[in-house]
Amino acid sequence: MVEDMKVQAQKAKKAAQLLATVSTQKKNNFLDDLAQRLESEQSRIEQENQRDVKNAVKNNMKPGYIDRLILNEKRIHGMADGLRQVAALADPVGEVISGWKRPNGLLVTKVRVPLGVLAIIYEARPNVTIDSIGLGIKSGNALVLRGSSSTLNSNRLLTLFARESLLQCSLPENSVQLIESTSHDDIAQLLTLREYIDVAIPRGGAGLIHNVVNHSQVPVIETGVGNCHVYVDEEADLSMAERIVVNAKTQRPSVCNAAETLLVHQGIAQVFLPQITSSLKQAGVEIRGCEQARQIIPDLVPATDDDWKIEYLDLIIAVKVVKDLNEAVEHINTYGTHHSESIITENYSNARNFMDKIDSAAVYVNASTRFTDGEQFGLGAEIGISTQKLHARGPMGLQELTTIKYVVYGTGQIRNA
Amino acid sequence: MVEDMKVQAQKAKKAAQLLATVSTQKKNNFLDDLAQRLESEQSRIEQENQRDVKNAVKNNMKPGYIDRLILNEKRIHGMADGLRQVAALADPVGEVISGWKRPNGLLVTKVRVPLGVLAIIYEARPNVTIDSIGLGIKSGNALVLRGSSSTLNSNRLLTLFARESLLQCSLPENSVQLIESTSHDDIAQLLTLREYIDVAIPRGGAGLIHNVVNHSQVPVIETGVGNCHVYVDEEADLSMAERIVVNAKTQRPSVCNAAETLLVHQGIAQVFLPQITSSLKQAGVEIRGCEQARQIIPDLVPATDDDWKIEYLDLIIAVKVVKDLNEAVEHINTYGTHHSESIITENYSNARNFMDKIDSAAVYVNASTRFTDGEQFGLGAEIGISTQKLHARGPMGLQELTTIKYVVYGTGQIRNA
Repeated sequence: MVEDMKVQAQKAKKAAQLLATVSTQKKNNFLDDLAQRLESEQSRIEQENQRDVKNAVKNNMKPGYIDRLILNEKRIHGMADGLRQVAALADPVGEVISGWKRPNGLLVTKVRVPLGVLAIIYEARPNVTIDSIGLGIKSGNALVLRGSSSTLNSNRLLTLFARESLLQCSLPENSVQLIESTSHDDIAQLLTLREYIDVAIPRGGAGLIHNVVNHSQVPVIETGVGNCHVYVDEEADLSMAERIVVNAKTQRPSVCNAAETLLVHQGIAQVFLPQITSSLKQAGVEIRGCEQARQIIPDLVPATDDDWKIEYLDLIIAVKVVKDLNEAVEHINTYGTHHSESIITENYSNARNFMDKIDSAAVYVNASTRFTDGEQFGLGAEIGISTQKLHARGPMGLQELTTIKYVVYGTGQIRNA
Repeated sequence: MVEDMKVQAQKAKKAAQLLATVSTQKKNNFLDDLAQRLESEQSRIEQENQRDVKNAVKNNMKPGYIDRLILNEKRIHGMADGLRQVAALADPVGEVISGWKRPNGLLVTKVRVPLGVLAIIYEARPNVTIDSIGLGIKSGNALVLRGSSSTLNSNRLLTLFARESLLQCSLPENSVQLIESTSHDDIAQLLTLREYIDVAIPRGGAGLIHNVVNHSQVPVIETGVGNCHVYVDEEADLSMAERIVVNAKTQRPSVCNAAETLLVHQGIAQVFLPQITSSLKQAGVEIRGCEQARQIIPDLVPATDDDWKIEYLDLIIAVKVVKDLNEAVEHINTYGTHHSESIITENYSNARNFMDKIDSAAVYVNASTRFTDGEQFGLGAEIGISTQKLHARGPMGLQELTTIKYVVYGTGQIRNA
């Protein structure tokens, strides 16, 4: 099985070398062809997907997970639309980012090129298969896909369609490789294939990401875990603060940019806590408070140290009263996941201090953390939100799936010293 | 020992948070102060360094390695000058790379910030200590330095001076941490400290780099190993080709951008090989040829498959006759290290094909591979040459030691869908 994966990775590498220089038109044709194919093959996709769903039910998978696994008409159109949206985005490949002439006449240019082969490791969401193929191929990269064993039937068919569309559009069909092995050891093996795989991107929960990071010899881009904070400063507009906190927590609690902890300056806690806890409770949110918060609102669940660390992804929020902005910053940089944090304040210096000192991918003043997203930032579709600092940080769009190459034009220059 | 390293890494992380927002002026003052300190403490440095040199002699270290280890007056001035050059470079931190307003009024800005904590793992070259400190601090990063045990006395004194200069300039002295442990297991442990170290940069030979890549859970930037190629096309200007090949091989054979393999198109091999082998031999180069090359120049050493892979770093070159440009590209992408490659040709289409298809950090037309270097490219001092694709590729200057952060200015925006 390991040998097979290696062969697949090698094939992807070969394909990537061809893909790197194909025209934007060809890549867009592929995206349109695949979109159409998904729509015209809807019933076949639903049929294969049902096999996965039945297995999941048989295996007592949680209803929430089964829901993510289902492909119905609406979701199949959603995948197709996603591909068409990617087709409409600008092709990042080939951009001459900068260029200059050296005193000796060498013309140095910095050109944007694909990364090569992306290994995407993900969970039981078959839409991620199509999503990754769309963004990957548009940015000129080949893909090695390793989804969950519980979506194998769906993923097999979806990648088959992708390969048919590649062939149809005269692109190398080996650009898309599905790893069918369901063994965890095999993932670990896959992540040693540094020679063929340029980057591994885990897309899923904290456990998956941790596992990939720990096992990979291939460079990894860490995505997604978001323990996001809203800090309500002493000089906040409290009704704005209330709107933002409720939005950041409740508008879609299951996603990584939802807020998980509310920090409140002690100077306004007495006034703001009754107001915000009442709104949050009305929205069905469970509130876990620190000692000081519970002195003001006694019926809060006591927060433990773990509550400062957890990404609930649920209608639960931790609340802590802090002495000042510095304690808020310290708390966030210690317990956060460097994803998205917001300060609510009317004080210029406090806003600036927060922006400077918070070590996260996105830092907001007076806005909901829910905006950390490729579409919301105006970058187009995204493959995830990087919470690491190397290569990409924040929402990763097409540009983050590329690297650069120096192309240097000489006229016979040699180096003398 | 492991606990100590963890404490050092934690201290560096704390220091990094402070360093991230200090003014350029303060950082430049530090660089100047350290430069002056090195020069005024020259005799003390030479004295400590002599202890390392004596140990190295006692341990039968190879003369070439001992040479790299020595700090004399000239080299100490060289280090000081290096720091002053870095002071003169633009500070990358704080640059607003781009910014735009969204339809809902959110102002999204992309700001350059330091990476945080750099772990530099290197060999018995004490100048790398000062070099790394200069580039690291100027780009707002704290450093965890792990040099060779054979330079421990020198490194101790150099980092002590750096910490004195930090204090002197009101910068956090913990920004520079020297790991004194000489155990290889400890390096492996160091490279698990993902919570405190943002990136590991190995600076040294292939063995060191391989070791760091294999053990690191911290993101690594691979640097340095260069199996560089010059391909002399059928339509090359042969006298230009000769000058470039000799320069790329002999001008400084011990560095990563020196050429290690010469590929010659079969159509000109009969004419070019006698000419180039004679010049190379004159320059003292040992030539290892493929079967076809040896039919033309019978006295070449026969090349084995290993010769296509090796970074000689010496006056040795491997020569292979290829059928055409495609075979040259195929050979380079298979055996190369994705560092620097050059085509010598007067044919426009061949030049373009080569530039497009070669998967290396730097691709040249009609120039020596020896130009792949931060200074030669006009980027200023460099911390190494990245041969991986993630984050940085090619010469890594100050900018490559930074990441970005999205700073988003709102006026109360919440997300509705």
